Amino acid sequence: MVKVGIIGATGYAGGELVRLVSQHKKLEIGFLDSRSYASMEYSKIYPNLKGIIDDKCVSINLDENLDDIDVFFTALPHGLSQQPVKEILGKGKKVIDLSADFRLKNVDTYEQWYDTKHEAEDILDEAVYGLSEIYSAEISKTQLVANPGCYPTSALLPLYPLLKEKLIDNDIIIIDSKSGVSGAGRSVRDANLFSQCNENFRAYGIGTHRHTSEIEQELSIAAGKRVMAQFTPHLAPMTRGILSTIYTMNNKGVRTKDIRDTLEYYYNDQQFVRIMKEGEYPQTKAVYGSNYCDIGFRIDERTGTIIIVSAIDNLVKGAAGQAIQNMNLMFGFDVGEGLQQPPIWP
Amino acid sequence: MVKVGIIGATGYAGGELVRLVSQHKKLEIGFLDSRSYASMEYSKIYPNLKGIIDDKCVSINLDENLDDIDVFFTALPHGLSQQPVKEILGKGKKVIDLSADFRLKNVDTYEQWYDTKHEAEDILDEAVYGLSEIYSAEISKTQLVANPGCYPTSALLPLYPLLKEKLIDNDIIIIDSKSGVSGAGRSVRDANLFSQCNENFRAYGIGTHRHTSEIEQELSIAAGKRVMAQFTPHLAPMTRGILSTIYTMNNKGVRTKDIRDTLEYYYNDQQFVRIMKEGEYPQTKAVYGSNYCDIGFRIDERTGTIIIVSAIDNLVKGAAGQAIQNMNLMFGFDVGEGLQQPPIWP
Amino acid sequence: MVKVGIIGATGYAGGELVRLVSQHKKLEIGFLDSRSYASMEYSKIYPNLKGIIDDKCVSINLDENLDDIDVFFTALPHGLSQQPVKEILGKGKKVIDLSADFRLKNVDTYEQWYDTKHEAEDILDEAVYGLSEIYSAEISKTQLVANPGCYPTSALLPLYPLLKEKLIDNDIIIIDSKSGVSGAGRSVRDANLFSQCNENFRAYGIGTHRHTSEIEQELSIAAGKRVMAQFTPHLAPMTRGILSTIYTMNNKGVRTKDIRDTLEYYYNDQQFVRIMKEGEYPQTKAVYGSNYCDIGFRIDERTGTIIIVSAIDNLVKGAAGQAIQNMNLMFGFDVGEGLQQPPIWP
Amino acid sequence: MVKVGIIGATGYAGGELVRLVSQHKKLEIGFLDSRSYASMEYSKIYPNLKGIIDDKCVSINLDENLDDIDVFFTALPHGLSQQPVKEILGKGKKVIDLSADFRLKNVDTYEQWYDTKHEAEDILDEAVYGLSEIYSAEISKTQLVANPGCYPTSALLPLYPLLKEKLIDNDIIIIDSKSGVSGAGRSVRDANLFSQCNENFRAYGIGTHRHTSEIEQELSIAAGKRVMAQFTPHLAPMTRGILSTIYTMNNKGVRTKDIRDTLEYYYNDQQFVRIMKEGEYPQTKAVYGSNYCDIGFRIDERTGTIIIVSAIDNLVKGAAGQAIQNMNLMFGFDVGEGLQQPPIWP
Repeated sequence: MVKVGIIGATGYAGGELVRLVSQHKKLEIGFLDSRSYASMEYSKIYPNLKGIIDDKCVSINLDENLDDIDVFFTALPHGLSQQPVKEILGKGKKVIDLSADFRLKNVDTYEQWYDTKHEAEDILDEAVYGLSEIYSAEISKTQLVANPGCYPTSALLPLYPLLKEKLIDNDIIIIDSKSGVSGAGRSVRDANLFSQCNENFRAYGIGTHRHTSEIEQELSIAAGKRVMAQFTPHLAPMTRGILSTIYTMNNKGVRTKDIRDTLEYYYNDQQFVRIMKEGEYPQTKAVYGSNYCDIGFRIDERTGTIIIVSAIDNLVKGAAGQAIQNMNLMFGFDVGEGLQQPPIWP
Repeated sequence: MVKVGIIGATGYAGGELVRLVSQHKKLEIGFLDSRSYASMEYSKIYPNLKGIIDDKCVSINLDENLDDIDVFFTALPHGLSQQPVKEILGKGKKVIDLSADFRLKNVDTYEQWYDTKHEAEDILDEAVYGLSEIYSAEISKTQLVANPGCYPTSALLPLYPLLKEKLIDNDIIIIDSKSGVSGAGRSVRDANLFSQCNENFRAYGIGTHRHTSEIEQELSIAAGKRVMAQFTPHLAPMTRGILSTIYTMNNKGVRTKDIRDTLEYYYNDQQFVRIMKEGEYPQTKAVYGSNYCDIGFRIDERTGTIIIVSAIDNLVKGAAGQAIQNMNLMFGFDVGEGLQQPPIWP
Repeated sequence: MVKVGIIGATGYAGGELVRLVSQHKKLEIGFLDSRSYASMEYSKIYPNLKGIIDDKCVSINLDENLDDIDVFFTALPHGLSQQPVKEILGKGKKVIDLSADFRLKNVDTYEQWYDTKHEAEDILDEAVYGLSEIYSAEISKTQLVANPGCYPTSALLPLYPLLKEKLIDNDIIIIDSKSGVSGAGRSVRDANLFSQCNENFRAYGIGTHRHTSEIEQELSIAAGKRVMAQFTPHLAPMTRGILSTIYTMNNKGVRTKDIRDTLEYYYNDQQFVRIMKEGEYPQTKAVYGSNYCDIGFRIDERTGTIIIVSAIDNLVKGAAGQAIQNMNLMFGFDVGEGLQQPPIWP
Repeated sequence: MVKVGIIGATGYAGGELVRLVSQHKKLEIGFLDSRSYASMEYSKIYPNLKGIIDDKCVSINLDENLDDIDVFFTALPHGLSQQPVKEILGKGKKVIDLSADFRLKNVDTYEQWYDTKHEAEDILDEAVYGLSEIYSAEISKTQLVANPGCYPTSALLPLYPLLKEKLIDNDIIIIDSKSGVSGAGRSVRDANLFSQCNENFRAYGIGTHRHTSEIEQELSIAAGKRVMAQFTPHLAPMTRGILSTIYTMNNKGVRTKDIRDTLEYYYNDQQFVRIMKEGEYPQTKAVYGSNYCDIGFRIDERTGTIIIVSAIDNLVKGAAGQAIQNMNLMFGFDVGEGLQQPPIWP
């Protein structure tokens, strides 16, 4: 059994990690770290896990001997992972970081978008960007995975292949994303209150959301040149799910078959990406609680626009599920181990 | 008192009309027509109106003497208004049609997008498109108002002035709209069930939604040339509200101030359009139950994109509220009469 | 015009008061007090009121000259109203307190259930319990109204007449209440987060909720003897609304007609209580955004149980609406002034 | 592998059965019967199962040779199972019926509450009531399980042991239940529309709901005498979950420890019943998507009332999950096989 330590285990990504670890046949929990809830029973914070997880939260000190832990997950707010990750790597252990701290290869870009200094620049190039289906080879060889953001996962899975194969080759990439409120985490703020969010739909962070930098980095790698994206996140009155509607111009005269062939070439052997049939589009309920990313698209001949729609569960494929998937790759397990529960409907 | 007849009074637009009429000081209800619920108490169908509306539904025959009715609202499914509207005009009465039947000036466009023959082509040019703030002069003089669709209202109020004043002048207009489920009406279909919609977000009608034709007609009129729009509707798990996020290229180097000045020039004297301050964006809850349209925008200098966001209550400004506003114009009442209740929050 | 000062204007009860004041023909706003948001524009906190309320929040000092204010509403957390209310009465002004501080006539009961000392015991008997329909005579003569709690309003409006008229006369009164999340106020706590409440239903405060004391006080007054009630509040995944399902034994052999006659005798002249027909039961949507209380009931002959169901909007009839209704009584205005907007459906 | 045939596979109970079968290691799907969707791909109706279930729906004829099917689930509307179940038993096959048709041992009671004639009275006494934890011995030996209703499951799991052990022994048992909308099935009716249910809470079927008969049958068996219950179902604006709040008088002076001991004696060896600690109460989110039943309680010394709260997922423990659990018992599998996924939070 592989022993797992989770640092920052009580946020929603942490809670989802614990749920997924509990049903993974090759994993067992080493410790569940939480500064705020140290020594509280974990199932008081996540009552769904009563009778499943008996552990209490601990406030871990990385100076301690943690030799029995085989892999660490860090699920801390942005900016707080750099020091812990460095220490873990120093112990010769594997780590999957769910924050943004190691996603951006260019430290200036990080410091500009995240408005803070990077304290672990020296280990930045050890990090592999954990978009599982795209970088599986690199992931399986690294000690440090920078787990992708939820919005970027939903945008990059459909876009990466199309830019890589030059089916999309222009300056206009608009990503209009809609997220459930759990994407804002379990942070206690007025904007996340039930009564503020229910029966409400709103845009936020227009032109300034930090995930833009991560999206553009990967699109640029795919395209082999600098690519910009117009990314607009929205908050929908639901708990889970991201739906991204992506617009780009069809300036190369590609056809439906071209896009379908490319997506199928990339994803037919991947168990967690489902390509929709013509005329069908993804919906967030169809991926609820699962690690799937559903992708549909349409070329509008009338306007010359390509419209792509993707759906993920932001806490699974957009966070904890992809983290487990990456860990499976790192340990040579079956990539879907622990991630097989079907989406729940209704 | 002006006496009102509502044909098709039991759908959601009809229900909202009845609610608004009940608090309008110059209106009284003449009849509430419903084929399906004839002779049932109206407040059995809309229990909110118990003690407020005592009428029973009737199945009206337009051959009858209806001389006491001063104005008719037709809130029927698309395709079913043409005959009744013709008969009402023939009686010399005013009519506001909430269907799409008289919105498109070009009968071929109608027949193509709605896939049905138009049976009242001869009176089509008597119809004024009822976008209240834009066409108030024409509305106040006509006998027949074609009340705009909900999505078009949300898109056109911000876009019309900007195209008219040439601040937007290019081929790429992307309208990504998110609607509450009441936009689908009270029709009893699997797709509208609570358990199918709750905790679900989905796109539909990509590139094919009929409101595209209505949006393009008005954008073309504003621009003085043929304009196309890429319109994508989505269903959000909420009852009311439309938020439209609109993308266009800033190919003329316009500045924030240019857009703000133009919007304020058009709307500062209009009581139902609110322009947001810089950095603030509309949200559907802020217009809930009211006739407001909130508009915010941002020019992204980094990408050269203009992003505009608008919010309306689809049943009020997107249907019954705008219909009352148009009726106020037609009768020379204060334009806000009966529409003054503030939005409800939370 | 009567000038209104609202102390604690930014909670949900405060926000609803401001909305209702804005549409009341005889009221104008004097000040909107808020400790937390002093000097911020009120419409930043309640964006629905943009263009309707231009005031900024102020942090009021009751030592100031406030002679121009005719009536005060205090919408502070429990325990914080005692001092301000005393000062306002000292100025010879009218005040409606929305907290629990003046609802309980017995100071020991207050201190026991609220676990805090009462600092204004001397003015306690000036307070009239503001259950508008029951105590209208007393309310119209007092300077200080203790506005009822939301749950008690929903339970007392049906129960008071039935106990008073001895139709219910036994020891078992079970009140099973279900509330929307706005009942918990705008306080920023983990338990009120969207993702914690959505798709969740739970009981809380079983046997210990403070509203029990208020309910029992009024039931005892009605019955003319000590009455206890088993009150269980629940949190439902919705913003507004309380539905109370009440059970008691039919130990006096009363019939449907007896209950109906009594309720109609008490409420037929009251514009905000609606008695449902046989076989029909209240639902929260039918009172949404309004000051109505809907009441239905059934005598189960099989089991000898009387089941009563009531529905209110917790923020209107359960808080701000009833406060306005009480103010109307205190000033001799029409009791429904400013409260006439119909419930919103859907 | 055991081959499963599901008759009525496209309702919500059917859909949940298919999801659970797909993750059960010892089951494979034989056929998915649906009258309405015959020959349609199952994943068109349940898009969550795309890539997991490739089957098409069939309209099964029980006259056919179905020798390869080892076990049948019938998930048809009440009244429609009698004939098919009889035919299946005639083939010597096992069947689990999810309708009410075989739950009531007394045919008169059935015909009275369900207002229809019973067409398979002769096999009624072969049916075992499938409350898994209570009747496991009988279930493991029968060919026909009558799977309990969702509401009865939530009421009986806590009440059965307490009546059996005489801790509750009186005439007043009030069961106030709150259900998500999926409990109404996937039937397309106005009352189940999103816009009718969202932001709405209502009671229905007061004193007349059919599940009353099933609850009373089992309570009477437990008590060894005729017991009546006052059962009130409510509809909450959520998809899944039932919370039942149960009230009874503590006329035997039982203590907290008595109740706890009894519940633990019955359920400590049962993996799907979790007894809450003192002061903690169940919530539906804590059992979401799982087969758990959570039970909490409190004795109110002040009023002499026992209040019990239970929570289940209506589609899992309240329908398909318990059906699988019963099948596991019938085949001698581990009782939790295929039911191990933890509840999802948030």
